[in-house]
Amino acid sequence: MSQNIIENLVTQLTKLPGIGRKTAQRLAFFILTLPAEEAKDIASAIVDVKENARFCSNCFNITDVDPCAICSDPSRDSNRICVVEEPSNVLAIERTGIFKGTYHVLLGALSPLDGITPDKLKINALINKLKDNPVEEVILATNPNTKGEMTARYITELLKPMNIKTSRIAYGLPIGSDIEFADEVTLSKALEGRRDI
Amino acid sequence: MSQNIIENLVTQLTKLPGIGRKTAQRLAFFILTLPAEEAKDIASAIVDVKENARFCSNCFNITDVDPCAICSDPSRDSNRICVVEEPSNVLAIERTGIFKGTYHVLLGALSPLDGITPDKLKINALINKLKDNPVEEVILATNPNTKGEMTARYITELLKPMNIKTSRIAYGLPIGSDIEFADEVTLSKALEGRRDI
Repeated sequence: MSQNIIENLVTQLTKLPGIGRKTAQRLAFFILTLPAEEAKDIASAIVDVKENARFCSNCFNITDVDPCAICSDPSRDSNRICVVEEPSNVLAIERTGIFKGTYHVLLGALSPLDGITPDKLKINALINKLKDNPVEEVILATNPNTKGEMTARYITELLKPMNIKTSRIAYGLPIGSDIEFADEVTLSKALEGRRDI
Repeated sequence: MSQNIIENLVTQLTKLPGIGRKTAQRLAFFILTLPAEEAKDIASAIVDVKENARFCSNCFNITDVDPCAICSDPSRDSNRICVVEEPSNVLAIERTGIFKGTYHVLLGALSPLDGITPDKLKINALINKLKDNPVEEVILATNPNTKGEMTARYITELLKPMNIKTSRIAYGLPIGSDIEFADEVTLSKALEGRRDI
């Protein structure tokens, strides 16, 4: 069959993760029905992200302006730094709307077996930043798994001599979940982390 | 939060059907890791489809050249016309690889209650085409539901006086399915349509 423009779009869309042929086809025919302007908006957002995305020189979040919108926002509390593994984590925390501090993106988590040693991450940049501008609190929001845990401990050790308050995000049962179906580790953490009411 | 380029891409992607915020975010960060060339290919496939897609003047499939690649392919058997409702159905049948004839896309199915009367579909175009160039067989591959069925019967009536062999795609159990879970109508059709072996 000749590779026509619809087929081409379907093929392009299947390159995306989790998009199989049927989904790609549904999307392609949907795009076909969109006003030309809206389809162009999607296309230019894709090009835009590739052409203009870079890392913020201060927090290493992905941005199109340097420093990023969060770092340069005077209403954000720069005395509180939330340390995360990836730029996508910043987006997730921002959506909660409750954190008004700034971020530091490590661009990964420690994993010595995979060759991800501390020098591969933005850990030195964090320490140097804190030496120049001590802050009130560093919140370690790396993932609650082996690598994220190791990374959080490593950074905690580095921060100890600097006398900076360091906290770790809470472990526990996710909201809306069911104790019956919680795994033992999560449930143990939820019990350990219990608070007086 | 400032609308940065990643947020913008996420917002654009959520316009697509079945793409929620989380999926859009995953796609956006994936696009960020793609080589610039590949990301541009996706973007230009989207723009391309909007700028160059039109209906084939012969079969009403979507195409960028007129007549479409299938209609202008001399290796296709123009004596066999498969009638379908939508361009996406052509794509589905083409993927089976077993049909070597040509198509006629009705661009819908009869639905008088919704105002879709025969004149709203490409039925006249089909009849006129057949008057000028009689074919050996018309295969009615409209959907096996009320509207598709009604459309198939309507076209059958029109073709009767023209003495053109008309067939309907087979009903039955889908391959890989289970008789236990088949609905009664499908199972009845599968029994009625049984063949000697």
